[in-house]
Amino acid sequence: MIHPTTARVLAAELPGHIGKSIELCGWLHRRRALKSVTFLVLRDRSGLAQVVTAEGEADVPEETVLRIRGTVTANPQAPNGVELTGPTVEVLSSLAEAPPFSLYRPTVPATLPVVLDGAPVTLRHPRLAAPHRISAASVAGFRAVLDGLGFTEVQTPKVVSSATESGADVFALDWFGRPAYLAQSPQFFKQAMVGVFERVYETGPVFRAEPHDTARHLAQYTSLDAELGFITDHRDVMAVVREAVAGMVTAVAGRVAAAVELLDVELPVVPAEIPQIHFAEAMRLLGADEPDLAPAHERWLGEWALREYGSEFLFVVGYPMRKRPFYTHPEPGRPAYSNSFDLLFRGLELVTGGQRLHRYEDYRGALAARGESPEPYAAYLRSFAHGMPPHGGFALGLERWTARLTGADNIRRTTLFPRDLHRLTP
Amino acid sequence: MIHPTTARVLAAELPGHIGKSIELCGWLHRRRALKSVTFLVLRDRSGLAQVVTAEGEADVPEETVLRIRGTVTANPQAPNGVELTGPTVEVLSSLAEAPPFSLYRPTVPATLPVVLDGAPVTLRHPRLAAPHRISAASVAGFRAVLDGLGFTEVQTPKVVSSATESGADVFALDWFGRPAYLAQSPQFFKQAMVGVFERVYETGPVFRAEPHDTARHLAQYTSLDAELGFITDHRDVMAVVREAVAGMVTAVAGRVAAAVELLDVELPVVPAEIPQIHFAEAMRLLGADEPDLAPAHERWLGEWALREYGSEFLFVVGYPMRKRPFYTHPEPGRPAYSNSFDLLFRGLELVTGGQRLHRYEDYRGALAARGESPEPYAAYLRSFAHGMPPHGGFALGLERWTARLTGADNIRRTTLFPRDLHRLTP
Repeated sequence: MIHPTTARVLAAELPGHIGKSIELCGWLHRRRALKSVTFLVLRDRSGLAQVVTAEGEADVPEETVLRIRGTVTANPQAPNGVELTGPTVEVLSSLAEAPPFSLYRPTVPATLPVVLDGAPVTLRHPRLAAPHRISAASVAGFRAVLDGLGFTEVQTPKVVSSATESGADVFALDWFGRPAYLAQSPQFFKQAMVGVFERVYETGPVFRAEPHDTARHLAQYTSLDAELGFITDHRDVMAVVREAVAGMVTAVAGRVAAAVELLDVELPVVPAEIPQIHFAEAMRLLGADEPDLAPAHERWLGEWALREYGSEFLFVVGYPMRKRPFYTHPEPGRPAYSNSFDLLFRGLELVTGGQRLHRYEDYRGALAARGESPEPYAAYLRSFAHGMPPHGGFALGLERWTARLTGADNIRRTTLFPRDLHRLTP
Repeated sequence: MIHPTTARVLAAELPGHIGKSIELCGWLHRRRALKSVTFLVLRDRSGLAQVVTAEGEADVPEETVLRIRGTVTANPQAPNGVELTGPTVEVLSSLAEAPPFSLYRPTVPATLPVVLDGAPVTLRHPRLAAPHRISAASVAGFRAVLDGLGFTEVQTPKVVSSATESGADVFALDWFGRPAYLAQSPQFFKQAMVGVFERVYETGPVFRAEPHDTARHLAQYTSLDAELGFITDHRDVMAVVREAVAGMVTAVAGRVAAAVELLDVELPVVPAEIPQIHFAEAMRLLGADEPDLAPAHERWLGEWALREYGSEFLFVVGYPMRKRPFYTHPEPGRPAYSNSFDLLFRGLELVTGGQRLHRYEDYRGALAARGESPEPYAAYLRSFAHGMPPHGGFALGLERWTARLTGADNIRRTTLFPRDLHRLTP
């Protein structure tokens, strides 16, 4: 272990140092002056610690950066049963400006724009930082599972030469005088890399020039992408999704228990086999005949799965081909439907995936059937011309996962510095 | 473990299945027809396996995707001491086009442009895939070390509103009708997040509109960034760099030993304390008086460190302030120099880092001294207005690391789909 400052002890470690003289470093979270004594609550990355000083000591504003030396003293009334007594307080860094609201209050008395505009300081509020800790733990869990299953991590280009994958909602940029676009997903690259590594994943930014200003859309978000070869069909992909999501829950429980507790997050149980329903059957249950599931449909299905199976997760499989991208593999014997799926978590689409086409002729046929020229796809099609196994994959939106898990009212609470239609700073 | 195809065994697992009937899946790496027998060499993600068939069997071109069922038979002459006998061969996917060169030859008989243009197929060559496996393992090692040291992973915006950090070489884009730029580094964001998490890291893409067409520049590369608070000075950052690099070496050795062996990579020993030299002393040794180290200087210093200390790593500390960004912390008592460092690995700059300013007044002073208005930096400066601890950090270029480690003649061999002045596909 490296302690950048030799004698520094973290707030959460104090109970192990009773009777010792140690050093705490952090931000003055709260200063509470009573008649004969002043309590300082110091905040560091591990949590909060109480420091008892003489009346009138350390008369500096909250958020001042302090180093405090003192003796760790047991006190059953204090948080964690310990406090620092006989302190000497040193100011490491002063404030030029107070935060837009008091960071020590249990709830956040500010609107979302205030929180986002002041992110460098507002996110210091423990309740506002917690979703980001959960997010980080989730990504770690995702990677741990896929590493264990023989996947290779890849880094793919975020700038591409044509807007082929979805055609709409792309950001255009100037690439040394040539037109280029921000990548909407690593889809084509991860498929190509199945030909090299069989199993690949990427955790990185994707970009959608999303003109909708809603609580669940971002123009940059973090996509957890995976793709694997030598599958029988989409069900092999769904088995990996199940493992990945279970690993994310395990990592959140194990790595950031304090954040989970602070936000009162109820972690879901991921069933050994997540229940599934075919799209056609879902439509029948819903009494609907749309070609896609509306958000209200997803919510209804979420409740249905909870009622029927006691599961907060539900796979909807077999989406109509016409609602899926051209590289989607049709359902054998029922070609209007596809070997694809969405995973609903608490009634919200969390993952989209499926089996892809893998034969060169099938790609050319699929493009022709949609009236598209193969020319802009030349680089992509090259993988398939050289022999590709049956394969499939999925993408999971990290911010959406964290938002659903923490019950956030807006996905912007789960990304540090959101980018959207209106927001390009801080 | 999930086996997408129930009975599938990987090539590397064959020695554990002698006498059993199993299934292999992969690409036909090589077909060698002898007088009375034909050898098929199958390639999967774990390596190669030899299959013995009757003369004239499986007459399909190399790179065809196959599923082969047969009996695992010991044969001391065969690779790994085993081969598959009595096989039935099924074609999973045929070729429409042969690769630009034979993938089974030990060396690669193709120029770099041929390799890069055909990445989806050329990277299947084990020697060309190996650097990317080493790269993936390196990132995993980096994260493991920082996770263990209490760092929180962050995801920051790749699109920013002003080109403030370096001013030059940025890509401009259209953000819903507003001018915006691709981020050259997560510098400002990671510093701000020290105020929230104390210790943060990010592994993600950064963008430089690099007009140089050299063997060591890319327009998109993967930056391994870290930043930590409550340091004494840059030496605390260097201690973390040492741990991170050591963890990367350990992960490469442990996770991708086959790739290391294939490329004959000599893994470096990372000294418990990496030797260091002050910039002024380096200049004296070099008999130079430039304000920066030229590549030839770096090479000379690399040899010097190997000679003097037996170390393939060398920290050069104290770079002149005028060659470092405005947020750099000066060297106490010697303000023309800075509390910054570069880490040289085998004579090449691998890491840049240092202590940053942390006081609001110091930032305003530093900008004023450079004749810059604080206005474009308003969002950045906000962190410091609210109280920031002494902190510092570093950035390590992943592709440069992998290139130096594997002895690649061009950094483009260490990124799957390079992006540069000329290259925007595949």
